[in-house]
Amino acid sequence: MRYAIVGTGAIGGYYGGMLSRAGHDVSFLLRSDYEYVRVHGLHIKSCNGDFTLPRVKAFRSTADIGPVDVVLVCIKTTGNHQLATLLPPLLHKDTLILLIQNGIGPEPDLQAIFPSANIAAGLAFICSAHESAGVINHQAYGHINIGNYSCTDSTLISNVIDNMCDAGIKAVSVDYKEARWKKTVWNMPFNGMTVALDTTTDRLLACRSTRCLIREMMLEVVGAARALGIDSLDETFADKMIADTIAMPPYLPSMKLDFDNRRPMEIDYLYTRPIAEARKAGFDMPRLAMLEAQLRFLQSQHT
Amino acid sequence: MRYAIVGTGAIGGYYGGMLSRAGHDVSFLLRSDYEYVRVHGLHIKSCNGDFTLPRVKAFRSTADIGPVDVVLVCIKTTGNHQLATLLPPLLHKDTLILLIQNGIGPEPDLQAIFPSANIAAGLAFICSAHESAGVINHQAYGHINIGNYSCTDSTLISNVIDNMCDAGIKAVSVDYKEARWKKTVWNMPFNGMTVALDTTTDRLLACRSTRCLIREMMLEVVGAARALGIDSLDETFADKMIADTIAMPPYLPSMKLDFDNRRPMEIDYLYTRPIAEARKAGFDMPRLAMLEAQLRFLQSQHT
Repeated sequence: MRYAIVGTGAIGGYYGGMLSRAGHDVSFLLRSDYEYVRVHGLHIKSCNGDFTLPRVKAFRSTADIGPVDVVLVCIKTTGNHQLATLLPPLLHKDTLILLIQNGIGPEPDLQAIFPSANIAAGLAFICSAHESAGVINHQAYGHINIGNYSCTDSTLISNVIDNMCDAGIKAVSVDYKEARWKKTVWNMPFNGMTVALDTTTDRLLACRSTRCLIREMMLEVVGAARALGIDSLDETFADKMIADTIAMPPYLPSMKLDFDNRRPMEIDYLYTRPIAEARKAGFDMPRLAMLEAQLRFLQSQHT
Repeated sequence: MRYAIVGTGAIGGYYGGMLSRAGHDVSFLLRSDYEYVRVHGLHIKSCNGDFTLPRVKAFRSTADIGPVDVVLVCIKTTGNHQLATLLPPLLHKDTLILLIQNGIGPEPDLQAIFPSANIAAGLAFICSAHESAGVINHQAYGHINIGNYSCTDSTLISNVIDNMCDAGIKAVSVDYKEARWKKTVWNMPFNGMTVALDTTTDRLLACRSTRCLIREMMLEVVGAARALGIDSLDETFADKMIADTIAMPPYLPSMKLDFDNRRPMEIDYLYTRPIAEARKAGFDMPRLAMLEAQLRFLQSQHT
């Protein structure tokens, strides 16, 4: 299968690089790194062993790539308005678009633009950073959960999962809605709170007041998910997330890195959208709505 | 009447200075400013005209002051644990203790220590700062609302109000409970939010998200007050507070000044106590409880 990577950063560089190393046909869309990667290739520093791809298919525009079988969308959701123009050259009638992004709602929004597209969600559990031009630093984890949103051909998704597993990426098929909300249980409290209080996950959990608050926020997400019919989520999942995070090294979530580097934050898909979805189902998220307001304020002070 | 000022800072220095200038017998309790004030007196820079008191009754301990008729307690509530030992030398059987402090609950707590004491609350509306040793800078406003908490002799309170008015301080008698909660409508949102987001009142109100949040927080205080039987407070009061604040110059609330100067914040009486009082009456304040947790976290990072 032909793959295209839209957004060759921390996420796209790693997953695209792994597929490419395994011999798959992978085309990379690049912006600022284009010249470097065209000449020097892509370097993946990885906790599982570094590797270099001296020659990769590097492109500046999706028109030069042409139609592919699978598109991995690995840009931040703050850039999703570009997908309406970026994607069409990559699509044939059966192309699978896999959105490896955070938050709630990017799939229905994309479907509204491409009504007949095959869309799936990729929930990546990975610590990875774009270190410099053409250099990706994969620090920990790396597995990916794939949830089918609107792909009518389930073998297409199985094939992608098989390709990934063959390439050394732990990929599994999961329920789309449950997977997105499960990841949101962690994302909503920690992304915003590390920004609002300029801190790290470990410090938030070391203070009794914020540890309780983080748990209350997680329970707001669990409550929202349950109001939306996802019965598998409950209090024990929140407690597991907190225990897992205490066991992790101090961590700066992606929104904190975005804020510190003066990039726009993913407030729309990580806060506004899930809060609105929950409200439609009659469930209120007062603490996370307050956090959203604080993030909007901090964002406005940057610009 | 003999007055004692416990805490000769921005508030105590101003009100004590005004009473002293008008010829009242005022003794000042001082700590770090003692040597300076003993030699050079007290200087009040005021928007209504500067003045100097070249000789004031300056003391290092309340034992040296002895019994007085009125004690103005002008320390921060974070120091209220000292009152159990500071006050006894100042009290005769009819002494009025006027707590010129922020928050909810200092009067019942003091009453528990001094069951037969005459206690009243002073709600000061003033912009004033302790500029340097013996120098107080009174920038704006200055009126004070006096609410009787447990004083059995109402003429005592009237006399204090008369003394203050004669000395050029606008003082009026108000309902104790209503007055404390009214001031809290402004104090809870703005004190904490300027600290949490490291900003000023005007910026919080210029951003639509935080302006809405500030209003929701004010409505939490209004709701709590109403649950506690204060029917005079409603939505229109919150809207008036917001309109008044928009008309003010950019303002750093006292808690923000405390935090920036690494002094302890008045979290107990400004957050924990009103939230607990409201909860006892069956009313929840989720946003302000979240702000309290954020403040506890920020406080813990300072120490």
